[in-house]
Amino acid sequence: MGVNSNRVEHFACPETTLRIPEELVAMPPFPIHKVCLPPVQTTFQKLKHRLSEIFFPDDPLYRFKNQTWFRKLILALQFLFPVFQWGSEYNVSLLRSDVIAGLTIASLAIPQGISYAKLANLPPIVGLYSSFVPPLIYALLGSSKHLAVGPVSIASLVMGSMLSEAVSPSQQPILYLQLAFTATFFAGIFQASLGLLRLGFVIDFLSKATLVGFMAGAAVIVSLQQLKGLLGIVHFTTKMQIVPVMSSALSQRNEWSWQTIVMGFGFLLFLLATRHISIRKPKLFWVSAAAPLTSVILSTLIVFLLKSKAHEIPIIGHLPKGLNPPSLNMLYFNGTHLALAIKTGIITGILSLTEGIAVGRTFAALKNYQVDGNKEMMAIGLMNMAGSCSSCYVTTGSFSRSAVSFNAGAQTAVSNVVMASAVLVTLLFLMPLFYYTPNVILAAIIITAVIGLIDYQAAYQLWKVDKLDFMACLCSFLGVLFISVPLGLAIAVGVSVFKILLHVTRPNTMALGNLRGTQIYQNLSRYREASRVPSFLILAVESPIYFANSTYLQERILRWVREEEDWVKANSASTLKCVILDMTAVTAIDTSGIDTICEIRKMLEKRSLQLVLANPVGSVTEKLDHSEILESFTFDGLYLSVGEAVAYISSSWKPQP
Amino acid sequence: MGVNSNRVEHFACPETTLRIPEELVAMPPFPIHKVCLPPVQTTFQKLKHRLSEIFFPDDPLYRFKNQTWFRKLILALQFLFPVFQWGSEYNVSLLRSDVIAGLTIASLAIPQGISYAKLANLPPIVGLYSSFVPPLIYALLGSSKHLAVGPVSIASLVMGSMLSEAVSPSQQPILYLQLAFTATFFAGIFQASLGLLRLGFVIDFLSKATLVGFMAGAAVIVSLQQLKGLLGIVHFTTKMQIVPVMSSALSQRNEWSWQTIVMGFGFLLFLLATRHISIRKPKLFWVSAAAPLTSVILSTLIVFLLKSKAHEIPIIGHLPKGLNPPSLNMLYFNGTHLALAIKTGIITGILSLTEGIAVGRTFAALKNYQVDGNKEMMAIGLMNMAGSCSSCYVTTGSFSRSAVSFNAGAQTAVSNVVMASAVLVTLLFLMPLFYYTPNVILAAIIITAVIGLIDYQAAYQLWKVDKLDFMACLCSFLGVLFISVPLGLAIAVGVSVFKILLHVTRPNTMALGNLRGTQIYQNLSRYREASRVPSFLILAVESPIYFANSTYLQERILRWVREEEDWVKANSASTLKCVILDMTAVTAIDTSGIDTICEIRKMLEKRSLQLVLANPVGSVTEKLDHSEILESFTFDGLYLSVGEAVAYISSSWKPQP
Repeated sequence: MGVNSNRVEHFACPETTLRIPEELVAMPPFPIHKVCLPPVQTTFQKLKHRLSEIFFPDDPLYRFKNQTWFRKLILALQFLFPVFQWGSEYNVSLLRSDVIAGLTIASLAIPQGISYAKLANLPPIVGLYSSFVPPLIYALLGSSKHLAVGPVSIASLVMGSMLSEAVSPSQQPILYLQLAFTATFFAGIFQASLGLLRLGFVIDFLSKATLVGFMAGAAVIVSLQQLKGLLGIVHFTTKMQIVPVMSSALSQRNEWSWQTIVMGFGFLLFLLATRHISIRKPKLFWVSAAAPLTSVILSTLIVFLLKSKAHEIPIIGHLPKGLNPPSLNMLYFNGTHLALAIKTGIITGILSLTEGIAVGRTFAALKNYQVDGNKEMMAIGLMNMAGSCSSCYVTTGSFSRSAVSFNAGAQTAVSNVVMASAVLVTLLFLMPLFYYTPNVILAAIIITAVIGLIDYQAAYQLWKVDKLDFMACLCSFLGVLFISVPLGLAIAVGVSVFKILLHVTRPNTMALGNLRGTQIYQNLSRYREASRVPSFLILAVESPIYFANSTYLQERILRWVREEEDWVKANSASTLKCVILDMTAVTAIDTSGIDTICEIRKMLEKRSLQLVLANPVGSVTEKLDHSEILESFTFDGLYLSVGEAVAYISSSWKPQP
Repeated sequence: MGVNSNRVEHFACPETTLRIPEELVAMPPFPIHKVCLPPVQTTFQKLKHRLSEIFFPDDPLYRFKNQTWFRKLILALQFLFPVFQWGSEYNVSLLRSDVIAGLTIASLAIPQGISYAKLANLPPIVGLYSSFVPPLIYALLGSSKHLAVGPVSIASLVMGSMLSEAVSPSQQPILYLQLAFTATFFAGIFQASLGLLRLGFVIDFLSKATLVGFMAGAAVIVSLQQLKGLLGIVHFTTKMQIVPVMSSALSQRNEWSWQTIVMGFGFLLFLLATRHISIRKPKLFWVSAAAPLTSVILSTLIVFLLKSKAHEIPIIGHLPKGLNPPSLNMLYFNGTHLALAIKTGIITGILSLTEGIAVGRTFAALKNYQVDGNKEMMAIGLMNMAGSCSSCYVTTGSFSRSAVSFNAGAQTAVSNVVMASAVLVTLLFLMPLFYYTPNVILAAIIITAVIGLIDYQAAYQLWKVDKLDFMACLCSFLGVLFISVPLGLAIAVGVSVFKILLHVTRPNTMALGNLRGTQIYQNLSRYREASRVPSFLILAVESPIYFANSTYLQERILRWVREEEDWVKANSASTLKCVILDMTAVTAIDTSGIDTICEIRKMLEKRSLQLVLANPVGSVTEKLDHSEILESFTFDGLYLSVGEAVAYISSSWKPQP
């Protein structure tokens, strides 16, 4: 008992109210347990408990309990700036690992930054700016040690596709840039407030199934878009769907340039080959990590050497030298396109959060440390808000670069600082070197990066395990491919939510039987050993009883009873006398559900059948009690387990003839 | 065993696959049960079973099984036209009851029909047309014996408010009428197809809580709108929200007419008094049933006698004599307002279905017969489709009139035929009598009818039983009052769905303890008798494990483990060695959920804790098996009950020191 009350203090007062007045308890021929209500709580206590379960499931302040104020201050600093956690233990050996890792990521980040900016229809230099400021801020605030921060393909694609539907990046470049920074600002605001309000579960609604389909669809769209660069086409559609892109690529055959095609496919093959090597032998991760920079250097050299002959190959051209210019004055808070900027911000914000947090969690799990989702959201959000004021667009933790960082031995967020420094050097001194870099190489880099997003093995696994999950995945894939990126995403989220609702709307019901010699009752159709208990029909309902399923359950349970009675008649077995509802899996009930229980009870009474509830969970017992229908059940209608209900009820029958 | 396989044939083949090869089963010191997979089914069989559970929960064709073809034919006729079920047993005594009931409803239906048509901004005569054709069709097709069919207040209000936002009924009366008939047509199509496709669960998403709030809000709106008639105001706002209506009523004080006010409030008091009498003494139901017609006759007489002096009281004026004119040519299938007509049709269709089916079910339950929801939907849908071609607007079973019909002793749908005949006589001969009927009396009738929709007792019950349900109710009430009728409804449905999702997103988890001397494991915080099992942490998860909660559950379960370890340390109890997840209430799992189980398992392994699953339900076991993570659990990770898991695992520890 001492043990018990100790356990209880975690979240409830130890008062337990027993429902049945002692004088009503007839002595059955064996001990029988009473169904208890949960500890009495006021509405305020319940609300507090519920809210703390909703918003603070991880009890984020548990470290602060029973500490001195000075220790609390340090803990608070460490809580807000994780750099104080590892900063004091930082040493030269860690620094060496971080420098190596940082330089490795930088070699990947620079070409990827330029490429992804093109994917978002932004000037290439914005991609480099975005690889400088945000990593520095993340290094201060982020709790992941391996996250390599910068622009990513999916968010770039979505931003590019959403904004260019309303504003043409070639005809109104300034407005387009303004919208991009504004969307980044709103993405940051949205991400930080999700973290601050502890509403992280919003991103949970992008299920894995949805994401697999969405990423694959986006990868296909992005790759096809690169046909423009790979084939050297000048006049290309700005649409994102598969049909116009393919037809545009094929109809502009007169613009195809063989020099571009040869160079593009050559480097594409090289990049894919290095990727393949690194996948087969993870130790050779540096092969694929170094390949993009190598390709950029090689192709730039080739174009530079052949510049008189290869003027048909489009090149990047002049890039401004210098650090990120401030862009606070470019944020755009009124006007016709504000709604679009907010929408784009929210969608890219959700997508980049999902990627960043998933990547952070993956590598944290490999190294056995914890990443705090809500803190990460705030870190990513603040870094995007700061980024939007310093000419950066949406950034997050990138899967490909974080994997490289992890393999290159990154130990702390200092690797991000090293990477940012390498980008700084590039921005200050090396920009002219990119003058002759051909656009086609960027297309090849993008394709190589996104092709890894097509995870057909995961899709096959979905098909094998859960057909409805696979449907969600397929909807999301086809939606992105044929309709549009945001709509594809919306459809997929809709399918996922529909799946939850379907499960609630049409829950499973089953008849239970007894495993001989035990108190275990199990599904009759699943366990051969389970056998019917004569005169009883034991039904288990596998879902909460809600407005959405109360009508269904009423019909379904009456059908079970009808079928049971038919079966009894056909087999001349002993007459059905009692229906036991096993409520173990009925984890919640609402007012419609309570009405349904009453209704079923009345209908069974008209057939002279008794309805008995077994093992209702705490909240359900409480609601039954509040609604005063428990009184009509009294002692002989409510049991702690199916076994006790069967034993007690059948013993009460025996005295009668 | 024979019993078992007999039961099984209901829906699955009796093959049960045992998961653990016999040679792996070490002999524990006591019998232990294996966890079985559900019977093997192909994807097609599963799909078929799932679809039949979704669409045919009531097994509608069970009567047809094992019958001769002639009997089947008769059953089919009875199935399609319930009139064949009771028609052969109809006799004079039933007819007498039906005639009395039919005439009683007619005396209520005629003034209500005229009033509700005004509520929908339609000519009063349309209300009478709508009380003639639809009841006749329902008498043929409907399965309820007590449903009194005709226009109802809620659907009239919604149609009026939605259509008049786009088209002014006074300036474009023909277009408005066309839209009303078209909306009725689409309402009928929608209702019939819900029934035909067995998608009746769509209306289940209007929970009781939502409806209580919505009806109360609509009743307030409708009553306030009647201030126009009651105060005799000529220039009144066409808006529906509480603020503009109240300010319009107050600002037009110069138009108030004292004659109208005296007459209106006089009859309102009379009607409310009769209503009160009938509520207190249900036997005097005819007092309130006859009051509207009495008021109409009395007020018409008064106005007729005082016609020279009371020309300030607005009257109905000339109404055309004659039967429903055909209106097929008025249906409107193209043009700018088609979308509005479809939307109005769907919303009024859902609302009127909800009312009709709820009313039908209520009275069927009182008289102990069944109403088939899907068949009712088809009947109501067909009657509206037919109605839209004969100058009727949306109709359904009305609560107030059905209650009168029930109390007046209606026995079959013939009461609807009698009522329609009375309306027919009125249409053919009595229309001129309504010339002097004052509009104010219609306002008083409407207020008396809708005031019963404000069910504050139900709202109090919601507050007592389920605070979130009450929230949904309140949102719906305030949404209707301050925003708009369809938006209020949408908000309320949103809150209800959010409630389901919240339950899934943040499920309850709890620690279980053993009830001494039993195999029962119960919530430690709820049952004082439950005691901790040393070295075990037994956790129950009260929801499916889905993408929407997998992250949460992972965090929450790790927090349970952390708290348990802290507790063990603080109390120097025996070290925690094993975590048992009781999966009884985990009624489904998806791919994200499976990943979570793997993840939890890995994390516990790093803390040298064993993870064990107890009693996974059929579909969960199957998915765990398909995903091949079951293999990593093997025999010592999966148990049929918590009791067996504890017994077996602790016995396996004993040999060690």
